[in-house]
Amino acid sequence: MRRIVIDRARRFVSQAKLMANSVSNHSSAPPRNGWRRDLSSSSPLTVATINPKVLECEYAVRGEIVIHAQHLQQELQTKSSSLPFSEIIYCNIGNPHSLGQQPITFFREVLALSDHPTLLDKDETHGIFSSDSISRAWQILDGIPGRATGAYSHSQGVKSLRDEIARGIAKRDGFPSNPDDLFLTDGASPGVHMMMQLLIRSEKDGILCPIPQYPLYSASIALHGGKLVPYYLNEATGWGLEISEVKEQLKAARLNGIDVRAIVVINPGNPTGQVLSEENQQEIVRFCKSEGLVLLADEVYQDNVYADNKEFHSFKKIARSIGYSEEDICLVSYHSVSKGYYGECGKRGGYMEVTGLDSDVKDQLYKLATVNLCSNISGQILASLIMNPPQNGDESFEMFCTERDGILSSLARRAKTLVDALNKLEGVTCNESEGAMYAFPRIHLPQQAIKAAEAAKMVPDAFYATKLLDATGIVVVPGSGFGQVPGTWHFRCTILPQEDKMPAIVSGLTEFHKRFMEEFHD
Amino acid sequence: MRRIVIDRARRFVSQAKLMANSVSNHSSAPPRNGWRRDLSSSSPLTVATINPKVLECEYAVRGEIVIHAQHLQQELQTKSSSLPFSEIIYCNIGNPHSLGQQPITFFREVLALSDHPTLLDKDETHGIFSSDSISRAWQILDGIPGRATGAYSHSQGVKSLRDEIARGIAKRDGFPSNPDDLFLTDGASPGVHMMMQLLIRSEKDGILCPIPQYPLYSASIALHGGKLVPYYLNEATGWGLEISEVKEQLKAARLNGIDVRAIVVINPGNPTGQVLSEENQQEIVRFCKSEGLVLLADEVYQDNVYADNKEFHSFKKIARSIGYSEEDICLVSYHSVSKGYYGECGKRGGYMEVTGLDSDVKDQLYKLATVNLCSNISGQILASLIMNPPQNGDESFEMFCTERDGILSSLARRAKTLVDALNKLEGVTCNESEGAMYAFPRIHLPQQAIKAAEAAKMVPDAFYATKLLDATGIVVVPGSGFGQVPGTWHFRCTILPQEDKMPAIVSGLTEFHKRFMEEFHD
Repeated sequence: MRRIVIDRARRFVSQAKLMANSVSNHSSAPPRNGWRRDLSSSSPLTVATINPKVLECEYAVRGEIVIHAQHLQQELQTKSSSLPFSEIIYCNIGNPHSLGQQPITFFREVLALSDHPTLLDKDETHGIFSSDSISRAWQILDGIPGRATGAYSHSQGVKSLRDEIARGIAKRDGFPSNPDDLFLTDGASPGVHMMMQLLIRSEKDGILCPIPQYPLYSASIALHGGKLVPYYLNEATGWGLEISEVKEQLKAARLNGIDVRAIVVINPGNPTGQVLSEENQQEIVRFCKSEGLVLLADEVYQDNVYADNKEFHSFKKIARSIGYSEEDICLVSYHSVSKGYYGECGKRGGYMEVTGLDSDVKDQLYKLATVNLCSNISGQILASLIMNPPQNGDESFEMFCTERDGILSSLARRAKTLVDALNKLEGVTCNESEGAMYAFPRIHLPQQAIKAAEAAKMVPDAFYATKLLDATGIVVVPGSGFGQVPGTWHFRCTILPQEDKMPAIVSGLTEFHKRFMEEFHD
Repeated sequence: MRRIVIDRARRFVSQAKLMANSVSNHSSAPPRNGWRRDLSSSSPLTVATINPKVLECEYAVRGEIVIHAQHLQQELQTKSSSLPFSEIIYCNIGNPHSLGQQPITFFREVLALSDHPTLLDKDETHGIFSSDSISRAWQILDGIPGRATGAYSHSQGVKSLRDEIARGIAKRDGFPSNPDDLFLTDGASPGVHMMMQLLIRSEKDGILCPIPQYPLYSASIALHGGKLVPYYLNEATGWGLEISEVKEQLKAARLNGIDVRAIVVINPGNPTGQVLSEENQQEIVRFCKSEGLVLLADEVYQDNVYADNKEFHSFKKIARSIGYSEEDICLVSYHSVSKGYYGECGKRGGYMEVTGLDSDVKDQLYKLATVNLCSNISGQILASLIMNPPQNGDESFEMFCTERDGILSSLARRAKTLVDALNKLEGVTCNESEGAMYAFPRIHLPQQAIKAAEAAKMVPDAFYATKLLDATGIVVVPGSGFGQVPGTWHFRCTILPQEDKMPAIVSGLTEFHKRFMEEFHD
């Protein structure tokens, strides 16, 4: 077991900053806006006078490399001959529809009918909508006060939709869910911010996060002025979450005067793609109880499991299975309509299920929700649909299954294709993508490449990713944006390009890598 | 001119807290959730250990009185005979569709077609959708990469939709708008939070806010740990914004060591309903330039102007009209799909137009936007529609005008009916509701009522509002939730109940007030 010290958190942040700066320096693209204001002292707001927490926060998934890609895309549109590729392939972000995944028909039918309920009174509607989408839309509208999909809802979300979601959770877990525990949110992110806002009082408050992690967590902790306490996933055991490592980090953080308040666990893993075993989850739950930590469970990829021998279990199911009640553990489970086989990122729907909070603390969480009034109703409706899709006997059922299974089996094939291809590259090793939407290969860079990156004032994996983009149009995110064991280098690549594009991506990646390794061979 | 001191900010906050506590104490309703966890020391999260900024923040529009109303509503459903009214009338919040306002047909047609684009390929669609909704949906889809309404967009919003909105702004103002200056948001609130996050570094940073104000501002300032610097609107001159008052407050705050960074101006006013004159707006713009303040202009009620002699002018138009460029003033204009004649609160669409920021500060704002990925696409589409509604010659134009004008003229009548009725009550004075969606009457409470409120440990206007709710089912928000000159008492009541409900509301209010004044006569 590696000896990990709290100091790594600092190194991680510095590394991320170095990357951001260096990529920024490297980019020769014009500024995003055509204008630039004179930085005279008369300006009421400069980078020197804004909130420094904003400066500190980084979000690599849409960071400098993506901005660089956007400039290249503009260049392609104006003078396509100047670049060695004909399109930008955005593998930086889990955004399935942007890469051609089609929406689930039933979900969109219900959304259209809910948006424009007068359709329900027209004869023609029965010819162009499925009967169960019509009945579901009626059911949803009848559950919304005044059938008003244009009204603000209860700040936690429409009660009848929360009832539906609670039913879906209970069916998934075999344990009851209370609709009063659900907070419907615009995607999962606002729920993460709300919990960080509640938990973090000062820079002495820490949140345990996996490294590598999804940078929403590091960004949110930075914005709320807290401390990211890293625990390292073990790449050698398929990104295993080892409780001994978590304990060591907790101990070290406490010795450094950090009040560790919560632990983030991402399952299936992002960017790492591992699916936790039941036993492992039980350990984590017991650890949270014994250490008095809130468990923030990112479960947004619960419908994305590809490994035959793995299955998703919610942390709530695990906790209740071992006899833990609300008295024993504070648990927040995040879900989103953006992932799974639906991938409806643009709808910004999601929820968090909050159990085990003191009721007066929950009142404070409710107050936070009221300040933003409510999440968007279409997203709320969609969240209720993904938790209660068509059932056997419904007119849409067959088509729904075909669409869902087609997407999931294709994603499984794409995950395998990409991981296999990566493992064939010189100096590259990649764990299986058991779930989620990503491959996270390790690249063993030659010393010459590291030196060249240093000369270019770039973090080595950002140097690699930028060269990959410039050569192929493929956008990936450097591992330094997620955090990694110092001295190791990775990148995250989504498995989302459609299957007919995969051969070109694999060959583009392979050829680039070969040339890169030749150029920088030690 | 009243002598105003910075100390009022403190008093305002204490007053709001007193109200919240007292209403909470007063309420005999059961806790919102059936369960209550034992507050033992083993709980990792208690009100004593959460972020104190969360405790400090208050949002009266959905505060304790509304929670009390929700309990009464549940009571109505189970044992309706026990209460002296048959329904709860929510006049606490500008939520038009919840009170029966119908959506604009064209907008909903376009949303339905964008949600379920396969409708566009069906013959039946032409029978049940207007031709311009079909062509607009095609135009919108063609502007979205891959026609994917289910994909995350650019973090500022879909470029083609920002182009549309910029065209709408330019048409409104007669001055150009740059789509790169637009940040599309889930309603206006997230944009306000983003700017507060950027501006506020510590409790020494202040934001000038009108008193009375919309409590999103006080809540957001509290959450970000800043200082609300109040400037009082002059009730005697129809809630006039007097620049001498603002100057005095700025001076006092600076003497107290506060770094005042920005001023919030709400026009048309919320909760006060005044519409600023051009001359007044020019004064404000000049003041911001000379004092180096960012102008945060809440312009979400720009389509809600009822006074014949008043007209809405955006602050950007005013600034450009007097020759101020981006070099002269940092200006943020907020707009929302939730208000106007559309009132689409549940869609959570909105934008902020940010001009005059240093480009590197704007990069930081963009980074903040990326952390939350993007706002919901339906809300983005709707924002583009309200800024570019059907035009003369379009098939929908006539119906659109009928719907829009019907709603706006009815709102104007309702505003007048309510204000007239309020002014007939003993000890009540109410300025004209020139715009927005509210009446904000002053209630001159008898000493006996104030004593009774004190005995009940309540702020007097919360005492009044609670008694009004208990007697009539009408929900209003106490003036103390918005701030008011100490010793004066008000409430905010929306003008949104449908016209056929207005007589009952007016008579309910009138009868209650008469009984209240009789009961507590000095």
